[in-house]
Amino acid sequence: MEKHILKYTKTFTFECGKTIDNLEICYHTNGEYSKGKKVVWICHALTANSNPEEWWDLLVGKGKIFDTEKYFIICVNMLGSCYGSSGPASFNADAKRKNKSTNHTNLYLLDFPEISVRDIVEAHKIVRNHIGIKWIDLIVGCSIGGFQALEWSISEPDLFNYSVLIACNARVSPWATAFNESQRMAISADSTFGEQNDITGGKKGLETARSIALLSYRTYIGYEITQKEESEDTFFAHKACSYQQYQGKKLASRFDAYSYYYLTQFIDSHNVGRNRGGIERALSQIKAKTICIGIDSDVLFPVEEQKFLAKHIRNAEYFEITSPFGHDGFLLEWQQIQRILSRSCKL
Amino acid sequence: MEKHILKYTKTFTFECGKTIDNLEICYHTNGEYSKGKKVVWICHALTANSNPEEWWDLLVGKGKIFDTEKYFIICVNMLGSCYGSSGPASFNADAKRKNKSTNHTNLYLLDFPEISVRDIVEAHKIVRNHIGIKWIDLIVGCSIGGFQALEWSISEPDLFNYSVLIACNARVSPWATAFNESQRMAISADSTFGEQNDITGGKKGLETARSIALLSYRTYIGYEITQKEESEDTFFAHKACSYQQYQGKKLASRFDAYSYYYLTQFIDSHNVGRNRGGIERALSQIKAKTICIGIDSDVLFPVEEQKFLAKHIRNAEYFEITSPFGHDGFLLEWQQIQRILSRSCKL
Repeated sequence: MEKHILKYTKTFTFECGKTIDNLEICYHTNGEYSKGKKVVWICHALTANSNPEEWWDLLVGKGKIFDTEKYFIICVNMLGSCYGSSGPASFNADAKRKNKSTNHTNLYLLDFPEISVRDIVEAHKIVRNHIGIKWIDLIVGCSIGGFQALEWSISEPDLFNYSVLIACNARVSPWATAFNESQRMAISADSTFGEQNDITGGKKGLETARSIALLSYRTYIGYEITQKEESEDTFFAHKACSYQQYQGKKLASRFDAYSYYYLTQFIDSHNVGRNRGGIERALSQIKAKTICIGIDSDVLFPVEEQKFLAKHIRNAEYFEITSPFGHDGFLLEWQQIQRILSRSCKL
Repeated sequence: MEKHILKYTKTFTFECGKTIDNLEICYHTNGEYSKGKKVVWICHALTANSNPEEWWDLLVGKGKIFDTEKYFIICVNMLGSCYGSSGPASFNADAKRKNKSTNHTNLYLLDFPEISVRDIVEAHKIVRNHIGIKWIDLIVGCSIGGFQALEWSISEPDLFNYSVLIACNARVSPWATAFNESQRMAISADSTFGEQNDITGGKKGLETARSIALLSYRTYIGYEITQKEESEDTFFAHKACSYQQYQGKKLASRFDAYSYYYLTQFIDSHNVGRNRGGIERALSQIKAKTICIGIDSDVLFPVEEQKFLAKHIRNAEYFEITSPFGHDGFLLEWQQIQRILSRSCKL
């Protein structure tokens, strides 16, 4: 898939009321859009980018269920992410910054406006209008990608044929917020984050945040399977320690702490009921045929949440994936997702 | 109960091979020990102290199940803890320290030897010999207090009548180690920890560590019950955030990051099978009547772990507590613990 950058020439107003000029939105497509081609819109999760052939390669590509030879496939990098769309790492032309006493560079960093799910969906809509797409045959999102697919299915109910919501919910749970806050605390405890000298601030904190996040993505059983000590005489357990350290460093080498911090806030903004008379009323507005998929061992988004979606969306069906790996099942159990989609979606 | 400090005059050798002189062990008792009085030995958990009337007041006191009028009750502050026993905050008389280039005070801090469960039990034994206790009618420990009770029940099998093991296991799980490592990463990401200027180092990291630990002590449902947002129109969820922040600060005001760091390492040393031919063989050495209690919603020490103990200890019975609050059930569901003990233990 090819990368595009859309430079928005108007002022973009965030849900929080703040604005930015020079908004840029990065997205990937498999070639040019032409009318008549069926459109599959993929919404990515927390630390992914807008190229699903990289992170969902078993489902997206030639001959795959999301066939790049058959469909027009598009994925937009979330506003606030560090993979091309505007966010904390963007240049801040705001003159007021020049008077600030801090010595950081001319990036937004912590001066970027707070981002909500609805802001990200608004950015998706700008891309859709730019390309001229009038009808989306299928929108799919896993985890917080599902937040975007769901929010959009509510705000433009006549736009979608199918909406596929995997391991997500209608509103952030207090449990998920507690995980998010712990991650923000970890990033903030690294003093280089608050100093905002440059985009590399908070890397140690980011490593910790990733380590915390993994605990919510995986399970007790998952760790038993992959991180068990080899010797029965172990003094201090170390295998799981190396894993947490490794995963922390791996993310910190490809992501920045500011973007990550903002995206955890975006998760905490998720509430489809806000100013719509509550969640159930919001869900009842959806017209798309909706496929809700839960993962039986998911501790971050327990299956009750996807069952709730299926119950309150008019034309919805619930399916369950089996996995020992919890929330990460949305990446690992691709064959089960493929099976559900090939049976339930007639594109 | 009254506080005592035992000053050990010999050199104390840790399982890791390192030694310290001037070991001090803090403990609480309800008066003087006299032969013929039944002995109840209570082992405390991670951030508690040696006064169970403070943290387990519904089970320990006059007329309670652990009746301070009937039994001789004793609790020893874990080696490494900041509540009176030797640990990172202790004065380090080692002359070599004076040549160090760091500017920190004469405390051990990160120069304290790594502590294992067996070291803590050795310190308990020093106290027992000092008092002259020859027989313990009941030893009880919850969570990592259970680590100590279990380890001791194995190393001195003829010492105990009852051993009560609540919400603990035979060996640290990879899952728990991943939680511990995340907490150590959080503390280390706070640069004031590594600087070791004084005992206040790493406080921000410690707040985060506590926030992470809470996630392992509680449950999705527990947060739904106590931390749900009040408004259906919430923009950014904040209730659970305040809770994590509050609990973090509360711990940091009464605990130091160095002690906490060492105690998370101590958890990772837990492996009753080490140099004993494996876990099952170690457990088979126990002669005490053993009561294993699990909490149905415990994600940190799932009930399978206590069932495993009951299966491999000769004279053991398994009981299960019901709670929506996970591991913290060992403090909250005191009535269920009381009921199990009053039926099963004939003191």
